[in-house]
Amino acid sequence: MRVTQLEPDSALGCCAPVAAQELSEDEVEATARLFRAIGEPARVRILNVLATSGEPVCVCNLVEPLGLTQPTVSHHLKTLTDSGLLDREQRGKWAYFSLKPEAGARLASLLDFKERS
Amino acid sequence: MRVTQLEPDSALGCCAPVAAQELSEDEVEATARLFRAIGEPARVRILNVLATSGEPVCVCNLVEPLGLTQPTVSHHLKTLTDSGLLDREQRGKWAYFSLKPEAGARLASLLDFKERS
Repeated sequence: MRVTQLEPDSALGCCAPVAAQELSEDEVEATARLFRAIGEPARVRILNVLATSGEPVCVCNLVEPLGLTQPTVSHHLKTLTDSGLLDREQRGKWAYFSLKPEAGARLASLLDFKERS
Repeated sequence: MRVTQLEPDSALGCCAPVAAQELSEDEVEATARLFRAIGEPARVRILNVLATSGEPVCVCNLVEPLGLTQPTVSHHLKTLTDSGLLDREQRGKWAYFSLKPEAGARLASLLDFKERS
């Protein structure tokens, strides 16, 4: 089963399962880019904070737990958002971020190595 | 001879779910390293070939589909094997590789963002 293309321009929307019978170079590159986005300690920590928070998290509240400057945190948040993993909501001065509800299931579906079509 | 690599210290063996309530710096780093291992086009292609093959694949049969030199292919295979994703089996001169049966489920479990323990 091909992953439904909800967001053709985001990495999460464009990928085919790693075990798909046919995988184009573009799909290979998009899948690699998506997992590369997660493959960074600060971004794993961001996903962890967002996954364990019951509500959207302000970028201003991520600076201290990550021990990084705000521009660096914002850069990591942009990478994750561009990958289609996060929702971004502007509230006045600050941006708030949350995990897209479907992100985990979509990522997991890419790694279903029993997939064959 | 089948070389089963159960390595308790492999990335796949040591990671906690991204959504775990408590995530140590070591666990964050291990999870990042694991997804970074997948986040490379040649390695996505290797996983794809192994996932769609019904049997172990010789490194010698990966050179052409990947369009890379054998040392480069071997380097990528080592990264994936060290991450705990592949089994490696020596048959005479050549090494054969296959996906660990549990690799997909383990990776998917790390990305279960509903996990809370």
